[in-house]
Amino acid sequence: MNSIKVSKESGITMVTMSRGKVNAVNEAFVDELGAVFNDLASDADTKAVILTGDGKFFSFGFDIPELLNYPKNDFTRYLKKFSSMYTQMFLFQKPVIGAINGHATAGGCILALTCDFRIMVTGKAKIALNELNIGAAVFAGSVGMLKSAVGERNAEKVLLTGAMYTAEDAQRIGLVDSVTSEEKLMAEAKRIAEGFSQKNPDAFKTLKNLLRRPAADCFGRSEEDSILDFIEIWYSEPTQKVLKGVVINK
Amino acid sequence: MNSIKVSKESGITMVTMSRGKVNAVNEAFVDELGAVFNDLASDADTKAVILTGDGKFFSFGFDIPELLNYPKNDFTRYLKKFSSMYTQMFLFQKPVIGAINGHATAGGCILALTCDFRIMVTGKAKIALNELNIGAAVFAGSVGMLKSAVGERNAEKVLLTGAMYTAEDAQRIGLVDSVTSEEKLMAEAKRIAEGFSQKNPDAFKTLKNLLRRPAADCFGRSEEDSILDFIEIWYSEPTQKVLKGVVINK
Amino acid sequence: MNSIKVSKESGITMVTMSRGKVNAVNEAFVDELGAVFNDLASDADTKAVILTGDGKFFSFGFDIPELLNYPKNDFTRYLKKFSSMYTQMFLFQKPVIGAINGHATAGGCILALTCDFRIMVTGKAKIALNELNIGAAVFAGSVGMLKSAVGERNAEKVLLTGAMYTAEDAQRIGLVDSVTSEEKLMAEAKRIAEGFSQKNPDAFKTLKNLLRRPAADCFGRSEEDSILDFIEIWYSEPTQKVLKGVVINK
Repeated sequence: MNSIKVSKESGITMVTMSRGKVNAVNEAFVDELGAVFNDLASDADTKAVILTGDGKFFSFGFDIPELLNYPKNDFTRYLKKFSSMYTQMFLFQKPVIGAINGHATAGGCILALTCDFRIMVTGKAKIALNELNIGAAVFAGSVGMLKSAVGERNAEKVLLTGAMYTAEDAQRIGLVDSVTSEEKLMAEAKRIAEGFSQKNPDAFKTLKNLLRRPAADCFGRSEEDSILDFIEIWYSEPTQKVLKGVVINK
Repeated sequence: MNSIKVSKESGITMVTMSRGKVNAVNEAFVDELGAVFNDLASDADTKAVILTGDGKFFSFGFDIPELLNYPKNDFTRYLKKFSSMYTQMFLFQKPVIGAINGHATAGGCILALTCDFRIMVTGKAKIALNELNIGAAVFAGSVGMLKSAVGERNAEKVLLTGAMYTAEDAQRIGLVDSVTSEEKLMAEAKRIAEGFSQKNPDAFKTLKNLLRRPAADCFGRSEEDSILDFIEIWYSEPTQKVLKGVVINK
Repeated sequence: MNSIKVSKESGITMVTMSRGKVNAVNEAFVDELGAVFNDLASDADTKAVILTGDGKFFSFGFDIPELLNYPKNDFTRYLKKFSSMYTQMFLFQKPVIGAINGHATAGGCILALTCDFRIMVTGKAKIALNELNIGAAVFAGSVGMLKSAVGERNAEKVLLTGAMYTAEDAQRIGLVDSVTSEEKLMAEAKRIAEGFSQKNPDAFKTLKNLLRRPAADCFGRSEEDSILDFIEIWYSEPTQKVLKGVVINK
């Protein structure tokens, strides 16, 4: 593992995204994160999971400079892997707490949306599905998970304005569930994870499935088409121009 | 009728759950409540219905000690009846006001969710879908009705924490629509029922159908599977252990 | 064009409903408004649209006195045109700002619901889906668009009470997004339209489609049946009696 760190303590498993300064998502990152959740699904020592990031970012989202080097068929493969991974995380059968330690933008926000509870640090950190501002779209599944979290109308506002939300503003629309200081973040996340970890795991799994499967079935039906639309816009001239200007401080 | 009392006055029909001290739901209760709503559907003297409970409970939910004596095939029959009954109530074509006079937990909360308007007494009474705390699940229809009332994200919070809500907290997430004192509950419920009873009944019926049929069609498709999952968890060893400890003050 | 005025300035196209004193909707109005949006869809000079009304009304809704003269088959044709037009507007691929300058009732509220952002004047103006109060229903699409805006539970409250909302009350449930004075309305609407007009149009179109297509597909399936139900209630004796009493100040 290079991008993802895993540590376990008393039934709570901490999954820490740790790739460069901003935890930018590339193909290896997706492969590793998917493999980690696949392992934890059957790990008897994991009652609940905390997903967080190293440094000042939860995750910046896609590693755009690296992905711009991909030929279209490789990029398509990467996007399908990303879609499979977040769907797997959205339907993960154990409780997952998102401890949003810093900026969670675009694909980073999508990772946060897969969690069962989102707690975010107050301060400079922003959360956003700001793809529109770089001339990009998102997939049907990201829209579906966002709607589940904030409702249809707020989902429109988030996506069609591309606005950057502070933790407090995000809490107001339901994009995060609670807000805390940097110092208290991990203790709070552990406290919440412990609460979830004491529930009957079979009943929890069944309830989470009943809650989330209808949304996943619905967005699953248009996921592939939405990936094709995403690719078409990604490779359009005005979007490529913006994307080539994106610099990631690694 | 043993468990359900019915009284009529000026177009408003009062349906009072009245079984022991906590209005616990057993098979006879389900049969009677279903029959009452079936009759009221075609009763020209019923313009609107108030659903309430006798004593300190709206309803505790399932009569667990009694149902634990059921062999699995009888319990399955009972669950299917319960599902049919609440679906019938959710789609009932006249206005129904839930006058939540006391605790409304688990199956009792599900009955409250079928109403068009929920008014609840302030004070000690709690409302909850707390099945997870006894290691049990719910059916797809209960999830669907809950989502209709409070939205997807709040539905996750209600079901995946099993939290007990005061009337005020319940109002904050939309689980009840208004809060009042014990003294004023019935007068308030009647005032609201009278408002609804003056609407054109055919237009009301059509609008309610347009509003609720899509949700009912959606949850109807997974209702049977969810009953099978419910049964599997109900008869699992850890859940049976908890259920055998449940005592109902009759 | 007789009922709809169109003016363009720096990428923002103003569409002003202008028919008599209350902008009542008749067949010519529907034909014209549909044609306008059809043209604007492919108009390179239109980056964003503002929809507003002349005078003290955004729109009163259907021109009931005129429509009561229609034989049933003509009325059916009119209703299908109205349904097609609002669906086309709901899925319009450019940003539309509703500048609600006055009362927006029944069909007038439905037109407002098609917009991406609703800003409404404070004061005497009311917004409502008050069809129930004249003994009428609405179509599945109107219910669907309302649910998208305010969520399922608030949609029930709006439709099953027929309540008239001030701008402030409408904002509280999400029926409008912001509230302003009469003097500032158009400047505010333009400012918002300009913000939207600077986004990448292909990415905007794709995101709006991902957000709204699932709702439109869902309500599209029951739209025809709901029109038949609407007609049955419209021609029922008690409803006709109320409708014949409706006077429109032209």
